[in-house]
Amino acid sequence: MSELKGACIVGQSGGPTSVINASLQGVVQAALNADCITHVYGAAHGIKGILDDVLYDFGQEDAEEIELLQYTPSAALGSCRYKLADPDVDDTDYKRILEIFKKYDVRYFFYNGGNDSMDTCSKVSRFMEENGYECRIIGVPKTIDNDLVGTDHCPGFPSAAKFVATTAMEVLRDAQVYDTGMVIVMEVMGRDTGWLTGAAGLASINGDGPDLIYMPETDFYMDRFLAEVKAVVDKKGECFVAVSEGIHYPDGTLVSDTESRAVDSFGHAQLGGLAGLLADEVKRSLGGIKVRGIELSLLQRCASHLASQRDVGEARRAGFFAVESAIAGASDKMVGFACKREYGYYCEFKLVDLAFVANKVKTVPREWINEAGNGITQEFVDYMLPLIQGRQEYPLENNLPRFSHFKRILAK
Amino acid sequence: MSELKGACIVGQSGGPTSVINASLQGVVQAALNADCITHVYGAAHGIKGILDDVLYDFGQEDAEEIELLQYTPSAALGSCRYKLADPDVDDTDYKRILEIFKKYDVRYFFYNGGNDSMDTCSKVSRFMEENGYECRIIGVPKTIDNDLVGTDHCPGFPSAAKFVATTAMEVLRDAQVYDTGMVIVMEVMGRDTGWLTGAAGLASINGDGPDLIYMPETDFYMDRFLAEVKAVVDKKGECFVAVSEGIHYPDGTLVSDTESRAVDSFGHAQLGGLAGLLADEVKRSLGGIKVRGIELSLLQRCASHLASQRDVGEARRAGFFAVESAIAGASDKMVGFACKREYGYYCEFKLVDLAFVANKVKTVPREWINEAGNGITQEFVDYMLPLIQGRQEYPLENNLPRFSHFKRILAK
Repeated sequence: MSELKGACIVGQSGGPTSVINASLQGVVQAALNADCITHVYGAAHGIKGILDDVLYDFGQEDAEEIELLQYTPSAALGSCRYKLADPDVDDTDYKRILEIFKKYDVRYFFYNGGNDSMDTCSKVSRFMEENGYECRIIGVPKTIDNDLVGTDHCPGFPSAAKFVATTAMEVLRDAQVYDTGMVIVMEVMGRDTGWLTGAAGLASINGDGPDLIYMPETDFYMDRFLAEVKAVVDKKGECFVAVSEGIHYPDGTLVSDTESRAVDSFGHAQLGGLAGLLADEVKRSLGGIKVRGIELSLLQRCASHLASQRDVGEARRAGFFAVESAIAGASDKMVGFACKREYGYYCEFKLVDLAFVANKVKTVPREWINEAGNGITQEFVDYMLPLIQGRQEYPLENNLPRFSHFKRILAK
Repeated sequence: MSELKGACIVGQSGGPTSVINASLQGVVQAALNADCITHVYGAAHGIKGILDDVLYDFGQEDAEEIELLQYTPSAALGSCRYKLADPDVDDTDYKRILEIFKKYDVRYFFYNGGNDSMDTCSKVSRFMEENGYECRIIGVPKTIDNDLVGTDHCPGFPSAAKFVATTAMEVLRDAQVYDTGMVIVMEVMGRDTGWLTGAAGLASINGDGPDLIYMPETDFYMDRFLAEVKAVVDKKGECFVAVSEGIHYPDGTLVSDTESRAVDSFGHAQLGGLAGLLADEVKRSLGGIKVRGIELSLLQRCASHLASQRDVGEARRAGFFAVESAIAGASDKMVGFACKREYGYYCEFKLVDLAFVANKVKTVPREWINEAGNGITQEFVDYMLPLIQGRQEYPLENNLPRFSHFKRILAK
């Protein structure tokens, strides 16, 4: 494969994570070091920054601030949820992207995101090829949802999982403090899959975990849920529940759906989120006992102070690998993780076709969820434990995190 | 002062914190080492454990589990919110306490709690003295609210403050990720005082802090609040607000009060907590912009994974000091912290009369809040920064915290 000389663009897309900036750092540092890459540009707010011609020049950023990216949560370049049209129907955006690529002589494009972003990569890649413009395009995975196919796991998920499991342990201790008992309903992110909610179950290994876990992989029945909570309360005097935001009734309706709430709630005023709604139902059904709904909200995806060291390292190396692979000639691929756990954890990178990954969703295998559909099995634990390994140290200033700050100098 | 030989009881009361168990550890370890203390008993659920005669024998617990207390959040003995009657009106409980003290030959009583607990200590102390039963009673302060008088600060507050400030930094980064802008309303604990909410302002030192902070020390006006949020949004395209759960209108009505909500909400269905309510108001007032309410809930008081090392150390030493002082003859006192910050931080322990502390509330000085009543001043920052110092390491098992587990063997 002949050397391809030109600029590169890196962008971030979808919901942020604790370690998506570690991948950004990997791409930027590898690209800055590559002789064939003339300029390293960061697209503001993902693909929108390319369409709007808002590109930052990483060549003008301080090396120390780039180094700090691995400790900085959220997407430093800004993110977007912009979905490109089907190029066969409307190719306006693609023409614009090609125009920008030509303007800056962009020959490498790295896009850090989830399955929608891999779809974007795939479509751009096809358009460039069809228009005879040579540009190597590699996707770098990220998502706390862990729902990408073609990879053992997704960067960002292990750190979020570590936060969820640690927090579950702490909250459970707090909930046990009074002799009156308490029911806690902890709502965890995950629209379509229960990976992150299942991670709450890790807390049980050290003796302080949820009693019941509900994920979108199985149907939810309100009556059964209330009976299961009651059974735990009758036995232990307390109950700790973890639920995915995406749990749904057998007909597919989300439990958090406001329309369905009116039916479930017997006419009472409704609380904010799913946690509040379920807490409300438990209160009404069990009476007497104290019930508290807790929504982990944005905290679970940005808690870089509790990141998994392995996750940060892998996210960063995925960025390196993307650049190395592109320079070696690869394109139209996503970086995937191939992991073994038989004789200790071992992870190596691979390349997966973008078209294979785009728009697919990897759910938790049914056999990793217990038969009753309200807990995880040992297989889930064995899969997860190596991922949350290592305490990630991070630089402090005034005993608070020191995040990366960019100058954001526009490309010329 | 002659040596007083006998057993000791230690109890925990009020809302738990990340470090109240570090104080428990201090008391237990010092008491186990003291020759004049024959037995060390832990009261289950505070004063209720004494009334119910549920006392655990610390002499039979493993030393390693006692050592782990400093890393374990919440109250390991269980807590209570039981308020003793005025002994002049009804002395039933006091007689029962005396009976239990006599039964176990209890000559030392250490009670770890907030201002209500200091009231309990004070009343028990007076009753014992009036009934000629020699028992030395010392209160050990704790509360994330930081509202005890007679002490520079309260153990538990610095760790909660560190969690709030760190989380504020992370959440703000997350909120900035899309180009559409966002308003975040983060609700922090604090019924009567704004200490913990003000701590969110520390995040600004490193460049990522709240734009507006509202505390119970000043009156809240909904119109002014909405105008202030709008002004920030107009200027920056986003706004990050921290509010105490206890903010109130000029007439004293809590903003979170459900009765007042019906008036404020123009007939719309109401969300769960204060954060949701204010988010709702902003949404309606500003339109268009994305608004998110975040309640830090129990997480802020049990996040021992982010405890301040200084806080853990001070909490533990306060326990030692309580025991040493009692052995030396002190009684009817609370351990207070006398701190200097002029030439670096320096803290020493002192003893304060329980009656002086009981039922009083220390609010944030008005001059530590900015003139507009929506932010903190440099004095607040200077007061706070030394308190959050040091990263507390903690033992891990399976890369998750290893908390203390007790056998809970009942005293005979």
